[in-house]
Amino acid sequence: MPTPSEFANAHRAQFEQELCDLIRIPSVSTLPAHRDDMTRAADWVAHHLTSIGMTVDVIPTERHPLVYAERLDRPGRPTVLGYGHYDVQPVDPLELWETPPFEPAVRNGALYARGASDDKGQMFTLAAAVRAYLETKTPLPVNVKLIIEGGEESGGEGIEAYVRTHGDRLRADAALVLDESVFAPGLPAISLGLRGIVGGEIEAIGAARDLHSGIYGGVSPNPFIALAEIITGLKDAEGHIRIPGFYDRVIPPDPSEKAGWDRLPFDEAALLHDKIGAAALIGEPGYSLLERMWVRPTLDVHGMPGGFIGAGSKTVIPARATAKVSMRLVPKQQVAEIERLFEAHVRALVPRGTRVEIRLRQRATPVAVSSTLPAVVAAQRALSEAFGREAVFTRSGGSVPIVADFVERLGLPTVITGWAVPDANAHSPNEKLDLEHFHRGIQAVIRFFEHIGKPG
Amino acid sequence: MPTPSEFANAHRAQFEQELCDLIRIPSVSTLPAHRDDMTRAADWVAHHLTSIGMTVDVIPTERHPLVYAERLDRPGRPTVLGYGHYDVQPVDPLELWETPPFEPAVRNGALYARGASDDKGQMFTLAAAVRAYLETKTPLPVNVKLIIEGGEESGGEGIEAYVRTHGDRLRADAALVLDESVFAPGLPAISLGLRGIVGGEIEAIGAARDLHSGIYGGVSPNPFIALAEIITGLKDAEGHIRIPGFYDRVIPPDPSEKAGWDRLPFDEAALLHDKIGAAALIGEPGYSLLERMWVRPTLDVHGMPGGFIGAGSKTVIPARATAKVSMRLVPKQQVAEIERLFEAHVRALVPRGTRVEIRLRQRATPVAVSSTLPAVVAAQRALSEAFGREAVFTRSGGSVPIVADFVERLGLPTVITGWAVPDANAHSPNEKLDLEHFHRGIQAVIRFFEHIGKPG
Repeated sequence: MPTPSEFANAHRAQFEQELCDLIRIPSVSTLPAHRDDMTRAADWVAHHLTSIGMTVDVIPTERHPLVYAERLDRPGRPTVLGYGHYDVQPVDPLELWETPPFEPAVRNGALYARGASDDKGQMFTLAAAVRAYLETKTPLPVNVKLIIEGGEESGGEGIEAYVRTHGDRLRADAALVLDESVFAPGLPAISLGLRGIVGGEIEAIGAARDLHSGIYGGVSPNPFIALAEIITGLKDAEGHIRIPGFYDRVIPPDPSEKAGWDRLPFDEAALLHDKIGAAALIGEPGYSLLERMWVRPTLDVHGMPGGFIGAGSKTVIPARATAKVSMRLVPKQQVAEIERLFEAHVRALVPRGTRVEIRLRQRATPVAVSSTLPAVVAAQRALSEAFGREAVFTRSGGSVPIVADFVERLGLPTVITGWAVPDANAHSPNEKLDLEHFHRGIQAVIRFFEHIGKPG
Repeated sequence: MPTPSEFANAHRAQFEQELCDLIRIPSVSTLPAHRDDMTRAADWVAHHLTSIGMTVDVIPTERHPLVYAERLDRPGRPTVLGYGHYDVQPVDPLELWETPPFEPAVRNGALYARGASDDKGQMFTLAAAVRAYLETKTPLPVNVKLIIEGGEESGGEGIEAYVRTHGDRLRADAALVLDESVFAPGLPAISLGLRGIVGGEIEAIGAARDLHSGIYGGVSPNPFIALAEIITGLKDAEGHIRIPGFYDRVIPPDPSEKAGWDRLPFDEAALLHDKIGAAALIGEPGYSLLERMWVRPTLDVHGMPGGFIGAGSKTVIPARATAKVSMRLVPKQQVAEIERLFEAHVRALVPRGTRVEIRLRQRATPVAVSSTLPAVVAAQRALSEAFGREAVFTRSGGSVPIVADFVERLGLPTVITGWAVPDANAHSPNEKLDLEHFHRGIQAVIRFFEHIGKPG
């Protein structure tokens, strides 16, 4: 009988084919037209996990079903909760895809399709590792629970509510969250933290109706100009946020963690030219690029609906205009407190003649994880072995709301990692999964179960 | 045989019916779907002017035809050039109309329809006055030329080009521009000036592509934040424009003209509450409300396309964002100079990491007219008689590009007036024409011809 690792190596082609079956289901969670596809994808996942020998429960939520699966063969051994999601981002702009987004195609060792990396291809490695143990009759070194959601790209309220009401079912000794990426091709990484988020809309209201700027220009408040003043008052030109008290709880990263970042193979010029393509990078002086991306809070404006946005000109003073704004938070900033400070400062910035409505809808608590947690130590060892290169510690600038629930609500030591390459185009056309990374990812999960399951 | 004035009074019903025929043609010049309606409306005007005894020429332009008509019976007498337009604004939002916009309906002495006031109903009074002379065999006191355009609501390039190439044909001793309004119901007004305009777009470009704010927030330039800084740098919170040199050529109004404004029946509280409906009015300290609306330059933002403007949230750092901006100019500001100063100041305000593309497309020269011009004196007398109340002198905050061409290029003493009520909803649902004003307007034109035509 082969070892789990040998089994996985021998079944590469089969794993890829099965993953392609799942990828072909266009499970776009934000688009109502794909509601049936969401059900099909949840059913596919449930059927797949059942077929490999897990006990499966499909849990309805307000929107898309959650799939829970378990294999609790080892009383006394630790329990690992694996997390992934089966929903995907929309595909627009479709015309930029080299091959159709839901017809997986292999080019240069990578599988191109929507969801290939985010997150079907990564989520699949959890199942493949479990299967490698079960099919080889090798006792699983740990108890395994999997929670696979269908709402990660559309707010994640379903899993959030489930954690709140059924947290006990998800209790474990460690969580393994597979929704991130390696630091560079071939260089595995464990993220020791995520930024949080507070986001929503500021609507500025001037006149009671749209007015003609020829007649009323000079006396009527203009909500876009009011928003410009508010935005400028929220963040200075160097990137420092001007909200009083905003930085009070921000803690600097551990010096040893920061020293590790300085050793990362990171090319600032490549980031600027290849990824961002702007004239220059911006940000707070005195902080390195990685610090600004990972452990410094920030504020962005995403869109400003209202007024006239067609071609040509219309000299309207719009009655209303909105700024879609979000702030990325870092440990130990608190969502509720930041919301309060933000609202108070915005209100203080509102110019005469304008009033504002503030609607904050997005929220995620920032997360930090210690590199000394046994789960993290086991994961680093497993990833290093699987990729043949020592796994590095990073942070993530983004926010995965459910991770804060795992860490804070369930108290789970959480390993945040993934096998996607940094330029996997997760939310863009031509998303891809490096197939070598995919298979090394399966090996890493197999080894993680082994290392964390070692008695004593 | 009745006098022209008696004739016009006796034919009120017929004039109204004929006007309704023209109004029923939905001649929306900005919408390509109405191209045939534009031709029909031009043909209607041409046929109407021919039928009353004028010599008519329909002049094709790049877009919609111009209608030129003349009746040059009186060598040695002055020539009056009448101006109006047959095109109308779009009707959106249609659901707010009490009766369909192109089915004229009379309620409370007013005719409700798109174009009733702006400008079909006003333009029609020029023809009705000419006809009153011709049908009563009363010699016209003046030579009359009419130029009726179909592009006033869509840029006016057609007439502009025509003035440039065929200015001689439009030579006259006075122009009568009927595209304005009375100051208050029953109180006729002559506008002694129009603000000019310079407008267009500032496009801010940060990254080469849309980026995820989780990953790149803190290092990537955000074009909306750049635009907020630029807008705040263009105009201060009190409404003063911060462009160096912007006010250098601004001339204050004549003290006697300004004194006249102080005597106008003007209710600031009513303007705030009934028309604008904002929490407060804004504007430069030290200037009265009418000064701020009429003779102070200003700057407005009309829309900020780019990024994510749908419902919900998308944490994108957009590659590009645009601000649609315009400035109202006052005598003697110069369009080309203001464009240069604006561009230079915007470029000086661009923050690090962002570049801008400035596209200025709207331009109109501000205009001032002296109240002592014989044409203005004749018009004031004519309007005062027709309305039974002394006509007042006002200014207009808006811009009618062709008037600057009449004044500056053709050197025409220009009377800017109209019969619309101030709340005629010219660009809004339920546009209306007060019918009593309409008929008094016809009487005013009849008398204007008489007064300006008086020999010696």
